[in-house]
Amino acid sequence: MVTTNRYSIGVDLGGTNLRAAAIDSDGKQLGKSSGKTNLREGREAVIEDIVLAIRALRDEFGQDKLAGIGVAVPGFIELKKGLIVGSNNLPAFDGFPLRDDLSEKLGKPVILENDANAAALGEKWLGAGQDVNDLVLLTLGTGIGGGIISDGRILHGFVGMAAELGHMTVIPGGNPCGCGNEGCLEKHASATAVASMGRLLHLGDNPTSKDIYQIAMGEGEDAKKARHVFELMGTALGIAIGNLINIFNFPLYLLSGGPLPAWDLFAPAIFREVEKRSFTYRNTKTRIERATLGGEAGLYGAAYLPFQCSGELKRAET
Amino acid sequence: MVTTNRYSIGVDLGGTNLRAAAIDSDGKQLGKSSGKTNLREGREAVIEDIVLAIRALRDEFGQDKLAGIGVAVPGFIELKKGLIVGSNNLPAFDGFPLRDDLSEKLGKPVILENDANAAALGEKWLGAGQDVNDLVLLTLGTGIGGGIISDGRILHGFVGMAAELGHMTVIPGGNPCGCGNEGCLEKHASATAVASMGRLLHLGDNPTSKDIYQIAMGEGEDAKKARHVFELMGTALGIAIGNLINIFNFPLYLLSGGPLPAWDLFAPAIFREVEKRSFTYRNTKTRIERATLGGEAGLYGAAYLPFQCSGELKRAET
Repeated sequence: MVTTNRYSIGVDLGGTNLRAAAIDSDGKQLGKSSGKTNLREGREAVIEDIVLAIRALRDEFGQDKLAGIGVAVPGFIELKKGLIVGSNNLPAFDGFPLRDDLSEKLGKPVILENDANAAALGEKWLGAGQDVNDLVLLTLGTGIGGGIISDGRILHGFVGMAAELGHMTVIPGGNPCGCGNEGCLEKHASATAVASMGRLLHLGDNPTSKDIYQIAMGEGEDAKKARHVFELMGTALGIAIGNLINIFNFPLYLLSGGPLPAWDLFAPAIFREVEKRSFTYRNTKTRIERATLGGEAGLYGAAYLPFQCSGELKRAET
Repeated sequence: MVTTNRYSIGVDLGGTNLRAAAIDSDGKQLGKSSGKTNLREGREAVIEDIVLAIRALRDEFGQDKLAGIGVAVPGFIELKKGLIVGSNNLPAFDGFPLRDDLSEKLGKPVILENDANAAALGEKWLGAGQDVNDLVLLTLGTGIGGGIISDGRILHGFVGMAAELGHMTVIPGGNPCGCGNEGCLEKHASATAVASMGRLLHLGDNPTSKDIYQIAMGEGEDAKKARHVFELMGTALGIAIGNLINIFNFPLYLLSGGPLPAWDLFAPAIFREVEKRSFTYRNTKTRIERATLGGEAGLYGAAYLPFQCSGELKRAET
């Protein structure tokens, strides 16, 4: 594939998968590579895989048109230092200066970003948020990540730890969380939380959130219980999103992640709660919707970062 | 008083008091007028009082150096239309195009702003937030208002209703609120909420929050009960501020309003809750402090608006 546009390379470094893509300034994916994150072989092996993937794309599409490189990673980012801090999924990278290390090996500036922040930016660029400048994304997975786009840009906070939305307290005294708190949103509404609630209700020995969804789509007592689980999940999400609406008055709140197919089971509880808990929701055209880029959002957002940083894509910020 | 600087006129239109001040670009107060908000005599009388107050200051300090006029009002603001919407304190102004009406009468552009937003901006300009660009202010009064300063500017949301922080749900199923919700922050932590909790504990027939404070500073069973009230207040504030820290990762969270003298009674509960509920708080230098401008914050913030709008005071945005 040949492009006359400038392009950038986005990398999504997950605990399981490592993906890289060359994406041009129109958002067209020129090329892509996907592999596993070989954490077993150590940090250096993973970094080598990242470098090789980026080099392969750069060699294919040319150094001269490469606007830059963005890397999305799970965990907190200390922005100024370019460090990953406290990532459960990438323990070997905890405190490691990944930005500068990659930049040195590639001879090119690298922008490091939290994966949920990158996903929110991706949705704003090419997904469900194209028509707005302000949105909040919640990613439902093992935990719950968050990304906030304010005036077209990621809201970072002063260290880079903003949008830890999975740790909003929705039920004081609720389920205990590894972060030391009780009642965190992610302990009541993540895929893992759905599975846990299912197990408490004896819906299988070690069910996944997908199992609970399958049971909920059936009939009988177990189906009722499984639907109740999604009802509880939606209630927790509704409390959190109601708060976010009262705080931000943004036009768009997006949800993404594994449990999205169960939307019809949990979304009614979200709408019921926000209707009750937010005067702003009741009186403005506020939308709560499914994100549309799925697992690609972070990759696209990572690729968007160099364009935004250089100001090349101002026109995309409507 | 003579100034060689440009100045602006800030107005704080409250449900009880109407104040106006001429403030120069260094933040020096050149002149001020204070009076009552004569709601009984109708909206037009109040508007005439505003216009007279502004004209008096303008005549004193000169039309040529006047940068503009900012007006802080309680209630939601529809920014684009310049309307006050749903103000409990100024029902006569509900839906009234105050911005354009004042602007027409004065022959000068007017900027309308929510009072808590203006107070947050005032604290950023001349108060406790001078050294930061990002802060959240909670004003504790009859209700709880909020103002969010992001990158030196008021965060408005897409309609202008952002920062309704008093209506964050802190205790799902908690005290009922006039907004239709249960467990709103302001029903657990405002001056009114303190008074209500005191009444429930039989600390007087119709105590004010100040009465509860006086009782708490004494001894015996009633003092214990009164201190428990502030403990509950601090707990609710801590849940809310913990969430705000997890959402924004801003360096500074400020509290202002009547109950501030009771700081030592409610602040320990705030710190305990945020310590528990926010990984970000535990790992960053996040400050939770008292605002310093008191009742003047909104007036100063209103005066700052024309300077910021014109870009004259860019240097003040460190």
